[in-house]
Amino acid sequence: MESWVDGQPADALSLKDRGLAYGDGLFETIAVRGGQPVLLERHLQRLAEGCSRLALAADHGLIRAELVAYAAALGDGVLKLILTRGDSQRGYAFDPAAAPRRILQGNPPARYPDVHAEHGVRLFPCATRLSSQPLLAGLKHLNRLEQVLARAEWQGPEYAEGLMLDLDARVIEGVFSNLFIVHEGVLVTADLRRCGVAGVMRGELLFQAKSLGIPTEITDISLEQLQQADEVFVCNSVYGIWPVNAYAALSWPVGPLTRKLQGIARALLDA
Amino acid sequence: MESWVDGQPADALSLKDRGLAYGDGLFETIAVRGGQPVLLERHLQRLAEGCSRLALAADHGLIRAELVAYAAALGDGVLKLILTRGDSQRGYAFDPAAAPRRILQGNPPARYPDVHAEHGVRLFPCATRLSSQPLLAGLKHLNRLEQVLARAEWQGPEYAEGLMLDLDARVIEGVFSNLFIVHEGVLVTADLRRCGVAGVMRGELLFQAKSLGIPTEITDISLEQLQQADEVFVCNSVYGIWPVNAYAALSWPVGPLTRKLQGIARALLDA
Repeated sequence: MESWVDGQPADALSLKDRGLAYGDGLFETIAVRGGQPVLLERHLQRLAEGCSRLALAADHGLIRAELVAYAAALGDGVLKLILTRGDSQRGYAFDPAAAPRRILQGNPPARYPDVHAEHGVRLFPCATRLSSQPLLAGLKHLNRLEQVLARAEWQGPEYAEGLMLDLDARVIEGVFSNLFIVHEGVLVTADLRRCGVAGVMRGELLFQAKSLGIPTEITDISLEQLQQADEVFVCNSVYGIWPVNAYAALSWPVGPLTRKLQGIARALLDA
Repeated sequence: MESWVDGQPADALSLKDRGLAYGDGLFETIAVRGGQPVLLERHLQRLAEGCSRLALAADHGLIRAELVAYAAALGDGVLKLILTRGDSQRGYAFDPAAAPRRILQGNPPARYPDVHAEHGVRLFPCATRLSSQPLLAGLKHLNRLEQVLARAEWQGPEYAEGLMLDLDARVIEGVFSNLFIVHEGVLVTADLRRCGVAGVMRGELLFQAKSLGIPTEITDISLEQLQQADEVFVCNSVYGIWPVNAYAALSWPVGPLTRKLQGIARALLDA
């Protein structure tokens, strides 16, 4: 489907855009089913948090309206919203009142092998570590070179995802997923106050687990804790949940809590 | 002057460019005097280092030829080269053989108040810290949100630059400059193996100082060492050298080594 820039069909961008110059912006990747953006409120909430922290003066009502209209036209697929600080004036300084530029792109539904969801995936042990930057941690911003470098570490289909640690060897997330472990009945995911992207599916699964009375914990996760996990899975807002069956010398069975949450994610994404 | 994309006049960019999507690329900001790009070899050298570390399969002969041709047409001003990994295929993965996209932009000469170079500048004490990422340290890559956040910390003309520390409070660099201190006759600048941009003017000044028999040191710099400095200055490849006369409660006179190197930088930039 044709892209929109600031509400108008477009296929090109100003060369002065600060998204290009500095990665000065945010994005959201949103599953669309039957013309509806899935988990729209959570995507908008994260975007608003990002706009607040980056001082982007976005019109959130307008963004919501465009997302809904674009999703309706797309039908089924994946919608990507990029919000940049618009054109550069001079250097890093910016006008705090400038309206951000809105870019909407539509793609067909993502196709992954069914085996990822059914039997689970192996995680590649990425050597690229996530740096610590509390000012940007949690946001889905456009500075993604660490993910580009990490994803380039492996080729071929043996690994569906890679696991990224931070510089202190904490277990943080996948290259394009969040990671959960289950340990003695507790659903645990990494604390993202230093690095990482606070995924929309991660937020939804934490919420759903709490609603079901499943204890949850957001904390630092060591490699030892990963080793001792009863279940491990990765998630994002496009594919839902993939069980993790192996990482380096470690392996795990696909567990019951993973399957339960996977069903919930699937219901959201297949609606 | 009109911009070029891949050697052709253009004013717009593909919406699928990975420079926009991920900040997946590099840039160089090059002073142009009398149709000549200043310090071209150093810019090309840093770019080649960046391409190597980001696995960008650039044609460096072609880039050189385009820079020379564009500078000749520009005459006097500032040339910006952005090199991106071209259009996105699917997610973070990329084709290692893909040719990068070359974007050239020309601007009039930068105008700064003469007082910056003559009497020196005050540095704003930026609260935004530089994160540690050895895989990207030194490169002039497109992931520049830390600089955007740091530059937004102050408004108005009282501060011409800001000083950025790393998360361990080491003194690293300005928002758009490198920093030098002079202590007991030794010219010292920060070690950039964890963070920072290895500026072309920084490299040239280290080289020129060595040629003059001035001892140089690249090392970690603490706030205490900054306090004890005899002279402090910032530099970049567009404005040359600005003496630093104040930072927080600290102040320095404009010293003789600063003036000597400033003359060298000016000779390069005013040629």
